[in-house]
Amino acid sequence: MTVQTGRHFLQIPGPTNVPDRVLRAMAAPTIDHRGPEFAALTRRLLDALGPVFGTSGPVVVYPASGTGAWEAALVNTLSPGDRVLCFETGHFASLWRAMAQSLGLDVEFVPGDWRHGASPEAAVERLRADTAHRIKAVCVVHNETSTGVTSRIPEIRAAIDTADHPALLLVDTVSSLGSIEYRHDAWGVDVTVTGSQKGLMLPPGLSFNAVSEKALAAARTSRLPKSFWDWTPIIDANEAGFFPYTPATNLLYGLDEALDMLTDEGLEQVWARHARHAAATRSAVRGWGLDVLCADEREHSGSLTAVLLPEGQDADAVRKVVLERFDMSLGTGLGRLAGKVFRIGHLGHFNDLTLAGTLAGVQMGLELAGVPVGHQGLADALDHLRTT
Amino acid sequence: MTVQTGRHFLQIPGPTNVPDRVLRAMAAPTIDHRGPEFAALTRRLLDALGPVFGTSGPVVVYPASGTGAWEAALVNTLSPGDRVLCFETGHFASLWRAMAQSLGLDVEFVPGDWRHGASPEAAVERLRADTAHRIKAVCVVHNETSTGVTSRIPEIRAAIDTADHPALLLVDTVSSLGSIEYRHDAWGVDVTVTGSQKGLMLPPGLSFNAVSEKALAAARTSRLPKSFWDWTPIIDANEAGFFPYTPATNLLYGLDEALDMLTDEGLEQVWARHARHAAATRSAVRGWGLDVLCADEREHSGSLTAVLLPEGQDADAVRKVVLERFDMSLGTGLGRLAGKVFRIGHLGHFNDLTLAGTLAGVQMGLELAGVPVGHQGLADALDHLRTT
Amino acid sequence: MTVQTGRHFLQIPGPTNVPDRVLRAMAAPTIDHRGPEFAALTRRLLDALGPVFGTSGPVVVYPASGTGAWEAALVNTLSPGDRVLCFETGHFASLWRAMAQSLGLDVEFVPGDWRHGASPEAAVERLRADTAHRIKAVCVVHNETSTGVTSRIPEIRAAIDTADHPALLLVDTVSSLGSIEYRHDAWGVDVTVTGSQKGLMLPPGLSFNAVSEKALAAARTSRLPKSFWDWTPIIDANEAGFFPYTPATNLLYGLDEALDMLTDEGLEQVWARHARHAAATRSAVRGWGLDVLCADEREHSGSLTAVLLPEGQDADAVRKVVLERFDMSLGTGLGRLAGKVFRIGHLGHFNDLTLAGTLAGVQMGLELAGVPVGHQGLADALDHLRTT
Amino acid sequence: MTVQTGRHFLQIPGPTNVPDRVLRAMAAPTIDHRGPEFAALTRRLLDALGPVFGTSGPVVVYPASGTGAWEAALVNTLSPGDRVLCFETGHFASLWRAMAQSLGLDVEFVPGDWRHGASPEAAVERLRADTAHRIKAVCVVHNETSTGVTSRIPEIRAAIDTADHPALLLVDTVSSLGSIEYRHDAWGVDVTVTGSQKGLMLPPGLSFNAVSEKALAAARTSRLPKSFWDWTPIIDANEAGFFPYTPATNLLYGLDEALDMLTDEGLEQVWARHARHAAATRSAVRGWGLDVLCADEREHSGSLTAVLLPEGQDADAVRKVVLERFDMSLGTGLGRLAGKVFRIGHLGHFNDLTLAGTLAGVQMGLELAGVPVGHQGLADALDHLRTT
Repeated sequence: MTVQTGRHFLQIPGPTNVPDRVLRAMAAPTIDHRGPEFAALTRRLLDALGPVFGTSGPVVVYPASGTGAWEAALVNTLSPGDRVLCFETGHFASLWRAMAQSLGLDVEFVPGDWRHGASPEAAVERLRADTAHRIKAVCVVHNETSTGVTSRIPEIRAAIDTADHPALLLVDTVSSLGSIEYRHDAWGVDVTVTGSQKGLMLPPGLSFNAVSEKALAAARTSRLPKSFWDWTPIIDANEAGFFPYTPATNLLYGLDEALDMLTDEGLEQVWARHARHAAATRSAVRGWGLDVLCADEREHSGSLTAVLLPEGQDADAVRKVVLERFDMSLGTGLGRLAGKVFRIGHLGHFNDLTLAGTLAGVQMGLELAGVPVGHQGLADALDHLRTT
Repeated sequence: MTVQTGRHFLQIPGPTNVPDRVLRAMAAPTIDHRGPEFAALTRRLLDALGPVFGTSGPVVVYPASGTGAWEAALVNTLSPGDRVLCFETGHFASLWRAMAQSLGLDVEFVPGDWRHGASPEAAVERLRADTAHRIKAVCVVHNETSTGVTSRIPEIRAAIDTADHPALLLVDTVSSLGSIEYRHDAWGVDVTVTGSQKGLMLPPGLSFNAVSEKALAAARTSRLPKSFWDWTPIIDANEAGFFPYTPATNLLYGLDEALDMLTDEGLEQVWARHARHAAATRSAVRGWGLDVLCADEREHSGSLTAVLLPEGQDADAVRKVVLERFDMSLGTGLGRLAGKVFRIGHLGHFNDLTLAGTLAGVQMGLELAGVPVGHQGLADALDHLRTT
Repeated sequence: MTVQTGRHFLQIPGPTNVPDRVLRAMAAPTIDHRGPEFAALTRRLLDALGPVFGTSGPVVVYPASGTGAWEAALVNTLSPGDRVLCFETGHFASLWRAMAQSLGLDVEFVPGDWRHGASPEAAVERLRADTAHRIKAVCVVHNETSTGVTSRIPEIRAAIDTADHPALLLVDTVSSLGSIEYRHDAWGVDVTVTGSQKGLMLPPGLSFNAVSEKALAAARTSRLPKSFWDWTPIIDANEAGFFPYTPATNLLYGLDEALDMLTDEGLEQVWARHARHAAATRSAVRGWGLDVLCADEREHSGSLTAVLLPEGQDADAVRKVVLERFDMSLGTGLGRLAGKVFRIGHLGHFNDLTLAGTLAGVQMGLELAGVPVGHQGLADALDHLRTT
Repeated sequence: MTVQTGRHFLQIPGPTNVPDRVLRAMAAPTIDHRGPEFAALTRRLLDALGPVFGTSGPVVVYPASGTGAWEAALVNTLSPGDRVLCFETGHFASLWRAMAQSLGLDVEFVPGDWRHGASPEAAVERLRADTAHRIKAVCVVHNETSTGVTSRIPEIRAAIDTADHPALLLVDTVSSLGSIEYRHDAWGVDVTVTGSQKGLMLPPGLSFNAVSEKALAAARTSRLPKSFWDWTPIIDANEAGFFPYTPATNLLYGLDEALDMLTDEGLEQVWARHARHAAATRSAVRGWGLDVLCADEREHSGSLTAVLLPEGQDADAVRKVVLERFDMSLGTGLGRLAGKVFRIGHLGHFNDLTLAGTLAGVQMGLELAGVPVGHQGLADALDHLRTT
């Protein structure tokens, strides 16, 4: 491996660059997870987590990856054979669909072109057609990490309401929470799924379900087998500050620190910062004469940008030269986008000059890989940063 | 909270005292889990893990707690309604039984007194009686963390063989792996379940399944719903050094460091060290005139000792005074043992003088709590340490 | 080297066991030492340092070892050929004397037996005899790290006053500050010298001079050459929160954290804790039938205990077996005490159970080294800890 | 203070960005500085240090700042009233001169314009004029951190030889060692002075003297008072792996790690990397239409670039906007350059994208501060980086 002469630029759309103060917090000695100090930590965390999700209801913390929290959302609320409505917004929506099928659910999958978010119009149509209310849940990926497209959750909520349909609304916010505006309660979401390693600025290893009253009611009759993911014993044990099984203590230390940082910055300011960096990044892409994958102006992601290469160009060749020459990791094209796009993560612990370095690396990488690009990209991005 | 004037003694039987070099390793920056550096890490870890389990077969690593690995062992190998044979060795065996029931399995539970390990005689008897081979798996907790009793896995294996029964053998080694002699392949175990936070000297947040050929075969026909826990995509992705979902990168850094430590010390030496500390601890308990909970000399745990208090004495009162006066955490009595025992963890990153400090704290705590004890306990333990 | 299976016991009388929170604080990124964040840090540190020295005057912080602060005390206040009165309390007092001679001072050295502190009676006598006031400074080591004897500074002050002598009083508190009662202003000390690596719970690398008005006045006429150690530019730059040359930023982070810890515990409580541990240690020594080196009950050190071995026994052999068998470092006999004593450090970040482990290790080490000792030592120490 | 949303850009010319692996190494527990593990560390460090200085002679390590190592170079080799020849290359050369004067030396100061290095021609002239050989040492700052001008040490050496003068050659390499080509032995330097916080990638707190045979000989007759800085006891104690007073253990851990990094990269490659980044930076400055302070093409610094602002522009206003808007620290103009220049550090742990971010920040800062600049600067720098 080549020698690293400076800090690696980890500009995949997650895991993100973990702040060093979070890493240091995680290096504190592990404590007794049944003692009073731990109970105080749990209570502090749960108090601080609610506002980040925009909820006053329970937030369940798993010592697991975000994928696990997907499973938790399904097995806690649904029963074998239940129908769920999913939207093909990209690779992760497809994976969640596949998981639902593996668990024995009946998935109705609204097809998509991986350049748009979940369609509120399609949602209304499908739900209206479901007069028997066989659809028990609508599953949407808020921010598709594979495409950089952000679905409009309030419009999906409105679609469900318009259709007067009782389905639960389950939303994956793995790459949006703590980066892109999101409001669990205000938007009428029933289960919000997220992970630790993106906007929450932690290493991977924790995941979350924010849970509405309606979801809790559904849990009482759900018949999918569950034990590890079962909300009830966790919420019960949390009352006293504990967990029914050993929690990932040191990651919780990191969460404590990261929540302090989000609180200090202010959530609205966090969202604005991400939106500004995303806009600057799109300026760069346009300045290079390339296309952003996201095809709807209303749905540009605040946390990552997928850049579409011209026909015949290999996005992974760009990523390779960027990694080897400039020690920067970019996101690969996933699934049907393999080789066609690369993804720039601009989320989490991030600032203007790191973005500038990131875009400089992309620009030089494109040139070195022989992709014909305009030279104005970085300059346009800096204009955006300087003037906003 | 009181001011901490020195290092806390975390002498619960796990999470254990994480070596500071492991904590520092975990504080390294998170890297791209799809890049070449990560692939090299995965391969190094999987190579080093096999010997710790005593297996040349696959070891599946979950970004989850040990409880999750219990669930993984069950859902990968079994189908709804399958019968499993469990042994009431203590609190954790009871929890595993409850999990199996939650997941829709039919549990045959051999009752126990929480002072003995799983009975090989009962195993033979139950399995012989099961002429229809309805029992699909035998589940044993190798080292009952709630009681300090270590079941004799080779004898359970022999029992299955004696009964000529095809059931799988699933073993929980959460508090024994990396502390007490254990040999997955040699002992004919099909799934070994463990967690990171005990003998592996990590914080909680990783868990493991070591999997035999026979277990892999069972997985191909198992019908319990599964997605997150499914072995197949993990083993497949591991081939190339990756994971099907985001792994807990920084805990894997810690694992890398901890495996180096175990390898440097030598697994046989690790087991001998734990056995010696356990023997010294039992000397102390006898010197105090108290009873060790474990009632069979062949089954004393190398990783923890549960101390039974005389009738009328409250074990939690002892724990409280020890915590408040000496800043040491001891394990509480769980389930039916609440108030009757406290547990001394002497596993993981541990040495003679820390054991001496631990036993000194217990001795003083017993005296302060008014438990009538002989004064010879610590002295006897030191004699043991000095002369062995 | 042997494998370390638990935490090393660093029971030399400094450097002491650095709290892990101090180590983590030191791992924060280095910042601009001319920026506003640094200025705020400096001011916070200087505000918190005064009370630890017991002074409202300036405290000068050097990026250097304690030896450097000795030199600073001398070169800032004295001129070539000046006479200083020193006391042979042990190895470090002898080293300070040698330094003074190297710097061109004329040292009057009151001989001592390395078992007593500086004699107030001798001080009065020498100062009274110095009717010409050729003696410009009286130099005393408050706590002799080589012997475990604590000189009675208020009585030395009284001696100077009794003799009505204008000499400055320079005191080395390297192994007492933050451990043993000390009051710069109240005791009329002119320069207090200390280092970071003992009671202040930091790694070595910082040292300090607390400076009286009278010392500042002396500095204005002092003619020993000086530049690096010169107080004036440091005190001047400190006004704005800066230093005249690059400060040891990351050690200052550690100092910030350590001062928080001392403040949280409370200085009086810190002193009481050390005194209690020292008394328990002496109980152990007596229980072994050995002698504490310190020969005056009024002068027992709160931070370390030097244990005198019987004739014919080799203290370094004890230290060697303790290091090899129990992974504990004890202090060696220095200078004329080589082989005759070993020293137990019980200062800094320290608690009852670490002391118990320490004394257990010493007791076992004595036995293994073949030193004839009584077995009651540890038990007596625990009695002391339990009942006080 | 504003909230930090990403990593601070510490682009002053030192302290530099400390690699996180060095920070983690420093967080290891402090060990006994008189034990075998420490001796092994010392020997490893001293073996690795020589090549970095380009010497096979002794390197003395001080637990002190670089300023202290200046003092050490003087007091070890010179006597009161000795004449030394210094060159006014900038602020730090002036400070060293002032130190020499404070210590009682007689300084002959060759005036300079702060835009050129030490003049070999002037050196020849002054030394030839000194027929009585009253000049005992020639003191040169290799890389003037205040100006970004690198003096040509081999030509200074040649000048001394040409003049056939016996003076010692003392060189300050605080901001060049580990960044800019330097060869203590090959260039005939007698004392090389450096600090830890620049090319060595450590926090401040360690400093160094590499010492020639001739310097050691001079030390034997030198009469400036010395104790802390005295080479002899240090070199003697180092033989066995120890130090005569408590070394800064945890900074030495960091040094160990940093030396590994320099060795892995290779010193020639380290120099080439710095030279390339410096050239790219100068491209940027030219692209902005500004002047680099250094006026001689042969003397451009590889570790920092001082940028001269047009008359009437305030360099500190640029620094202020860069700090406030972009969280980047730049070096201020020192001494007579105050307000006229700002300095960009591009040394130590540094890579292409961090440089790109740095120059982007400077470019935007210049524009925001209203300095009339061309927009091509960053683009030109990137051209340089991409094509070399």
